Amino acid sequence: MKKFINSVDSVLAESLDGFAAAHADLVALGAERKFVRRCELNPRKVALVSGGGSGHEPLHAGFVGYGMLDAACPGQVFTSPTPDQIVEAAQAVAGDAGVLFIVKNYAGDRMNFEMAAEIAEGRIATVVTDDDVAVENSTHSSGRRGVAGTLIVEKIVGAAAEKGLNLEGCVALGERVNTRTRSMGVALTSCTVPAAGTPTFSLGEDEMEMGVGIHGEPGRRRVKLERADAIADEIAAAIVQDLDARAGAEALLFVNGFGGTPTIELYLMYNAARRMLEKRGLRIARSLVGSFVTSLDMAGCSLTVSLLDSEATALWDHPVRTAALKW
Amino acid sequence: MKKFINSVDSVLAESLDGFAAAHADLVALGAERKFVRRCELNPRKVALVSGGGSGHEPLHAGFVGYGMLDAACPGQVFTSPTPDQIVEAAQAVAGDAGVLFIVKNYAGDRMNFEMAAEIAEGRIATVVTDDDVAVENSTHSSGRRGVAGTLIVEKIVGAAAEKGLNLEGCVALGERVNTRTRSMGVALTSCTVPAAGTPTFSLGEDEMEMGVGIHGEPGRRRVKLERADAIADEIAAAIVQDLDARAGAEALLFVNGFGGTPTIELYLMYNAARRMLEKRGLRIARSLVGSFVTSLDMAGCSLTVSLLDSEATALWDHPVRTAALKW
Repeated sequence: MKKFINSVDSVLAESLDGFAAAHADLVALGAERKFVRRCELNPRKVALVSGGGSGHEPLHAGFVGYGMLDAACPGQVFTSPTPDQIVEAAQAVAGDAGVLFIVKNYAGDRMNFEMAAEIAEGRIATVVTDDDVAVENSTHSSGRRGVAGTLIVEKIVGAAAEKGLNLEGCVALGERVNTRTRSMGVALTSCTVPAAGTPTFSLGEDEMEMGVGIHGEPGRRRVKLERADAIADEIAAAIVQDLDARAGAEALLFVNGFGGTPTIELYLMYNAARRMLEKRGLRIARSLVGSFVTSLDMAGCSLTVSLLDSEATALWDHPVRTAALKW
Repeated sequence: MKKFINSVDSVLAESLDGFAAAHADLVALGAERKFVRRCELNPRKVALVSGGGSGHEPLHAGFVGYGMLDAACPGQVFTSPTPDQIVEAAQAVAGDAGVLFIVKNYAGDRMNFEMAAEIAEGRIATVVTDDDVAVENSTHSSGRRGVAGTLIVEKIVGAAAEKGLNLEGCVALGERVNTRTRSMGVALTSCTVPAAGTPTFSLGEDEMEMGVGIHGEPGRRRVKLERADAIADEIAAAIVQDLDARAGAEALLFVNGFGGTPTIELYLMYNAARRMLEKRGLRIARSLVGSFVTSLDMAGCSLTVSLLDSEATALWDHPVRTAALKW
């Protein structure tokens, strides 16, 4: 295992300390590093709290700040945060308008956020994301997995909360964005969990895992590495078939790197994906390219398509000031 | 070779097309993809033009936009742009205040930017960056290599040009920032140039290349992989010794990923580097963490330290709106 670490036990703590120090103008660490919260809270708005296993950086702590999340709870690598962490985060950022949990659909995350919602005081509601079309059930979830589309839910609902939307409205908006958002990923290599020390799975020199999950969970099929256009075409087909979009519908295209794939390849994949989606009748009105929902050092990428209407577009365009997304 | 590509000959063209389409609100591609330029030019300011071999994305095209570059010329992977490209870029963005070339110190880049300066009409001046303390001469350069510190020169001079600094002032500022900026990198794996198809160099399972160049050029020594703190300490020592900073001096710390290293490790390295620099008497007043000056898919990172004064700090903080840097 070749990583920049001091000890496998302290990877998360040291990385969080670095994150908080590098972005001290935006975020603060909670006691015992249980959560990352905004420096400046607005007690009149709905507070958004997300979280999940670490190893997907900058998700979620990188999205804490004006226009997006109020707090994020980092679990150990690929492990859900504890109910205790989530309760403390909710209590630290809750104002008068209630708290919205945004939770990726994994069994551990669902359970721990549910327990936290029962324990914490005040009004709490939850939106669950499940945008991954690759598989219907997986190693870690009943139903579809929540993956890169979670960023889009967090951005759009975050903007709406900033503009004063109430808790019920945020839930309805989050669910609407989630149902209009689909993702699918592909891995060229495995990731290596620090505590394990060896790759989570193995792929042949000429193989890829189509439909891989963000923890290295199996996807649809393991096949020979194909050309970028063929990969983009297969993923675009899976997404568009599932979205059932009208011809000419406007969409946001998000090409996400898994951590080991460089920018030059991500833009090449964006170019391929855009053509494949336009061929199927979508109009790409907004774009995001970068490694935002990663799987440690996995080489690979995912495509996410989110159908836009004028409300979603305006909320996507709304200013955001976080460590990882700024405009 | 496992990459998202269609053919080794079209990697750059397809990636540039994707980049230009994804950021059509900010940039436009020149004819035959010779350069990337801002959509909105300001003919009264000094125009900044940079460029170099591709494979370092988002450098330089990702830094084209308000507050930074006016145009960037992408050469083929790890190959200088041609004089012809640079001349066309300069002519496309030149206004009344002249053009400043910002050039990393590699023999090919130096030669081609010099030829372009002779051919192009109008006033042209050049700043050469050479921030890499690892080696005094290298495979591709006489004198030190220009690496991640180039981003800092482009950001600070870009802000000054936006505020109306004239050409002579931009040259003096760029040279001053360059002399106050030092970098050094370390590789855990090689990169693979698409046209070559095999890794540029090989490292044992437990080895790292200390002082590696951004094209995989040899560094100071090949040694056993060490703990993050030990790596950060060695690089911090090399940088501080060379900078000759007074105790308590304010500095910008930039931890840069080489393309194959994920965000969780970069923040851990930031945490280590910050401690090692503070131990040596520097005060970290500004920070940047991310993969901005990459070496294709190389796993590794570099540390850059740039001494700040009130002028440099204000220019660093000045708004910037590019694909890769926004605040």
